[in-house]
Amino acid sequence: MTGRLTIVGIGPGSPELLTLLAAAELAAATDLVGYGPYLDRVPERDGQRRHPSNNREELDRAREALDLAVQGRKVAVVSSGDPGVFAMASAVFESIATGSPSWKGVDVSIVPGVSAMLAAAARIGAPLGHDFCVISLSDNLKPWNVVLNRLEAAAEADFVIVLYNPASLARPWQLGEALVLIGRHREKSTPVIFAHSVAQTDERIDFTTLGDADPATADMRTLVIVGSSATKMVEQSGGKSFIYTPRRVEVAAS
Amino acid sequence: MTGRLTIVGIGPGSPELLTLLAAAELAAATDLVGYGPYLDRVPERDGQRRHPSNNREELDRAREALDLAVQGRKVAVVSSGDPGVFAMASAVFESIATGSPSWKGVDVSIVPGVSAMLAAAARIGAPLGHDFCVISLSDNLKPWNVVLNRLEAAAEADFVIVLYNPASLARPWQLGEALVLIGRHREKSTPVIFAHSVAQTDERIDFTTLGDADPATADMRTLVIVGSSATKMVEQSGGKSFIYTPRRVEVAAS
Repeated sequence: MTGRLTIVGIGPGSPELLTLLAAAELAAATDLVGYGPYLDRVPERDGQRRHPSNNREELDRAREALDLAVQGRKVAVVSSGDPGVFAMASAVFESIATGSPSWKGVDVSIVPGVSAMLAAAARIGAPLGHDFCVISLSDNLKPWNVVLNRLEAAAEADFVIVLYNPASLARPWQLGEALVLIGRHREKSTPVIFAHSVAQTDERIDFTTLGDADPATADMRTLVIVGSSATKMVEQSGGKSFIYTPRRVEVAAS
Repeated sequence: MTGRLTIVGIGPGSPELLTLLAAAELAAATDLVGYGPYLDRVPERDGQRRHPSNNREELDRAREALDLAVQGRKVAVVSSGDPGVFAMASAVFESIATGSPSWKGVDVSIVPGVSAMLAAAARIGAPLGHDFCVISLSDNLKPWNVVLNRLEAAAEADFVIVLYNPASLARPWQLGEALVLIGRHREKSTPVIFAHSVAQTDERIDFTTLGDADPATADMRTLVIVGSSATKMVEQSGGKSFIYTPRRVEVAAS
């Protein structure tokens, strides 16, 4: 009687960034589970049930999806971006590991998607063209000193740094502290990208420098990318500029 | 007379992981430029010219594509995975920054794709469910001590670590040294994933532990993911196992 559960990445926003596999899995599901605004991006289909939920209830949502699958339904958990990057896939496996034994019988699969960081990078050039770190600035689920320690390591070793969850109404100061810390290891001229609502209708991609970056312009729909010491800008003649990180690391002769 | 150049990510292998936008851009191009085996994945279209090249000529390929665009062609540079992650986008911008002034007039855009690391992670669970670093182990374009320094920082700060270009015939020993270095900071039981030919017909995803990992099983088509101290395995009742990194970081009381 046990059904299937597929965790489907629908990309960061635009339907154009959906993969063919994701579209097929969404169409084949009997039940869609996910954060309401993400479900709204999936075309309606007759007979398909929708179970929208609130963004802050990831584990509840995972458990609801697993229960539906145990009842024999074909469930698609709808995840923005890629489901494996700070998203629903981890919550589903956490639930299986710690929850009802019946959930261990569910046939689980994951459909990867274009993550917000890849879409943001594509809009502005190739800032992730060389070694990079991806860090969630949220201290809801980890102590802030773990975040600081990781930022310090990434900044010192000259990684490009991608910051997920840089700010929210409840977490207004973390990004400012993070940028100050990174600024101890990088020049003021280091490129910084604020990508807001990537691939959505209100998308806005701003770039600035570490010296001029204003943390107050970030919110929960922003992704921040801080360049390494090698990250550069190139201006096109039409006035458009791109940011990229070269594939080569130059080292000064010593 | 200047045309367009679009750098298109076609995903790691399977046509199912192509986005709708990538398919549209490939169909609209007059010229396709790329590594031969990647071009072979794109359906033939009447009147469309193909310019296959050798894998080791990224800058030559970028220059050829820019020259075609200057001649007024609509060029798609075909990139495996995501074009912004150790791939063609950075090479195109490097070429523009340092090459013919006419290239600054080319209308450049990038179509992101599902990267190999996201596809590999999806096959095995959610190993990238929390903070992670992405490092190319190739020392063709950077000194090995830069690689070691980044590995040390990532290992010490307990990031999940994704290793691109872990090995090739010309670089047989780097992965072994990298795993030994990481092993100084992590338990022998830490999960390690060897993902070979992700989303291709000869795909093989193996998982093992840091204590048992054999670097000799990696080659130029392998991606290696080393878990953090929090990365866990969960076994399903059908015998299938998944690897995931929880969203929460637990810290022992001190």
